[in-house]
Amino acid sequence: MLILMANEKKSNAETVKRLYNFGAHIVDDIKSGESPKFSTTVRSRSNVIFDDKNGFLKLGNSKEERTFVNIAQARKFMQTMAIAAKCDSFVKANLHTSIRGLFYQLKLSLGEDIEENLFNEQSESNPLIEDLEVALDLKREDLNLSADRKGFLAGNVRVIDKFGDEELEIDASKQGRGGWPIPSDVDNDIKFVDIKAKYVLVVEKDAVWQRLNEDGFWKKENAIIITPKGQASRGTRRLIRKLADAGLPIYVFNDCDAWGWYIYWTIKTGSINLAYIGNSIATPEARFLGVTMSDIEKYDFLKKMTIKANDVDVKRAQEMLGYSWINKHKQWVVELKKVIQTKTKLEQDSLQAPKLTFIGDYVREKVKNNDFLP
Amino acid sequence: MLILMANEKKSNAETVKRLYNFGAHIVDDIKSGESPKFSTTVRSRSNVIFDDKNGFLKLGNSKEERTFVNIAQARKFMQTMAIAAKCDSFVKANLHTSIRGLFYQLKLSLGEDIEENLFNEQSESNPLIEDLEVALDLKREDLNLSADRKGFLAGNVRVIDKFGDEELEIDASKQGRGGWPIPSDVDNDIKFVDIKAKYVLVVEKDAVWQRLNEDGFWKKENAIIITPKGQASRGTRRLIRKLADAGLPIYVFNDCDAWGWYIYWTIKTGSINLAYIGNSIATPEARFLGVTMSDIEKYDFLKKMTIKANDVDVKRAQEMLGYSWINKHKQWVVELKKVIQTKTKLEQDSLQAPKLTFIGDYVREKVKNNDFLP
Repeated sequence: MLILMANEKKSNAETVKRLYNFGAHIVDDIKSGESPKFSTTVRSRSNVIFDDKNGFLKLGNSKEERTFVNIAQARKFMQTMAIAAKCDSFVKANLHTSIRGLFYQLKLSLGEDIEENLFNEQSESNPLIEDLEVALDLKREDLNLSADRKGFLAGNVRVIDKFGDEELEIDASKQGRGGWPIPSDVDNDIKFVDIKAKYVLVVEKDAVWQRLNEDGFWKKENAIIITPKGQASRGTRRLIRKLADAGLPIYVFNDCDAWGWYIYWTIKTGSINLAYIGNSIATPEARFLGVTMSDIEKYDFLKKMTIKANDVDVKRAQEMLGYSWINKHKQWVVELKKVIQTKTKLEQDSLQAPKLTFIGDYVREKVKNNDFLP
Repeated sequence: MLILMANEKKSNAETVKRLYNFGAHIVDDIKSGESPKFSTTVRSRSNVIFDDKNGFLKLGNSKEERTFVNIAQARKFMQTMAIAAKCDSFVKANLHTSIRGLFYQLKLSLGEDIEENLFNEQSESNPLIEDLEVALDLKREDLNLSADRKGFLAGNVRVIDKFGDEELEIDASKQGRGGWPIPSDVDNDIKFVDIKAKYVLVVEKDAVWQRLNEDGFWKKENAIIITPKGQASRGTRRLIRKLADAGLPIYVFNDCDAWGWYIYWTIKTGSINLAYIGNSIATPEARFLGVTMSDIEKYDFLKKMTIKANDVDVKRAQEMLGYSWINKHKQWVVELKKVIQTKTKLEQDSLQAPKLTFIGDYVREKVKNNDFLP
């Protein structure tokens, strides 16, 4: 299978155009003697809905207006304009920074112009960036704001990284023990070519990923192995979505505990916090490969591998049983009830107990038998 | 400058030999009717000393004996033997695992043989691994136990990664936005060749490292840039030590706060927890490039960049003033007193305030003027 994934860059020109139109609209308001304003979608919990048909969390239709001539909003409105102007300059200069870098630029420039130090806390600027993302229908990555990067990939795929004045080709099958570090932004200036793999295996823990990498698992199986290294970053979730778009099945291999389930459902359905970009980072096609409590019936040694579930695990299992998009799956109900009843859990690391290479055998068996939870 | 760094692998054969001798010694004790025993160096705080001449934390000479025929020690002694046997099997099979993987192997094998489940908590096995490291004068990496990996590198250096049945060459100047991920173990099966750089810049935060990488800073300056991504892992500290051994100056660029100073001193003098391998992971030659409170006198805009120091920062500054190896440096005393008096601090990210590329200008200026704290 050879798939060429298009570079889904919203070109800098397109981003600058949206920022320009955003500003032009504000200027129009001022010229016609109205309060400058723009519209955004409500991002609070009350407007986060589960899209049953498509299987992910997204924002509903509630809109709210941000307007300048309003005591409660004037300050924030002005800050949002400053953020838009800064991002415009970043995109035009083709330079990136973190939201912390943006915060300090604002702290300096606003502080100088108008005495009062408008951005004392970064917590003030973060929701305004989200306002802009929603209002412009862009991701912050398109605005040249990097999010935290995390996660690694190995497998038969090449990455074309247009970086500075070079166009580098990185072969993810030749990165040795380290793998390819997944960047903050996998859309702009990054292309994935020659994806030769049958499926994608997402492995919660880096240590377990390293074990599989050392065994050459991805080579033997012709798979792509990804570790989010715990909770998946925006970049890693977006990459998983893109690989699913390329037609690859996505199997997620996590601990059987509160944290492992949470990581899985975040990859699959997205999260409340990022519901505003649910469409581009959720992967409803993902399947849960394991570890499951039901595995104990198949692998006798796992009986000895259980460890005590703590209150968080049990509480989380109870909560999950209450979600309609989870409790409609019988297998998940069985699974979660086992944790609640036995008050025990399993870690993926325990699959190394009989022999270090058993992890790979376990995954192979599951994939062969299509033995997944939905 | 072209330096070839030797592969400092304690060959598998050497590791297996030490493990064998360790076991043979125990068998001898048994045969001669004595309690099996071995000697290790005390690792508690009372035996951690600062080596003034060499400038790092190391263990003193206090020894203690582990012996089997002793109610308090029998269980631990037996566990240590089991760990040694497992590591022996890992090294012979040329496979690696995490200490969590080791924990589960022990949980299964000891549990089966003798009913009682000897390893219920990983916290039981960790100190015993350290006992072995000290008794055998090996690092856990030599025993094929991976520690957590963290940190990235970019610059003119090539890495030869003997991995599985391949010998891969990774050019750290061609890794694009991601850089080369620093592995858990930078001694065994890893070689660094063609180190063409004038100095090493260690940058606390990944976001700031990414900024410098995007600017091609390391290319223009012919430097190697490393980010530990916060506190430096064992592997990253060991790599910095090795690059210093190769004759490169090491400059550390951190926040001016409790956490930033801690990261610096850990790289420079080692830490109490890892005093038992201080010799191989401390880099007393390291210098602190910034950010400093004194920078404010030089860069006017920094006055507006200070943020409130919290109690932890102030308390840490006070503690540091009490350490003889810190308060002997006038510059550090001045620096720390400024934090205590003004109750403010500075972050390295704030250097982006005037323009995104100012971070590089700042570092260049400091290096040019040899403007470092000791």
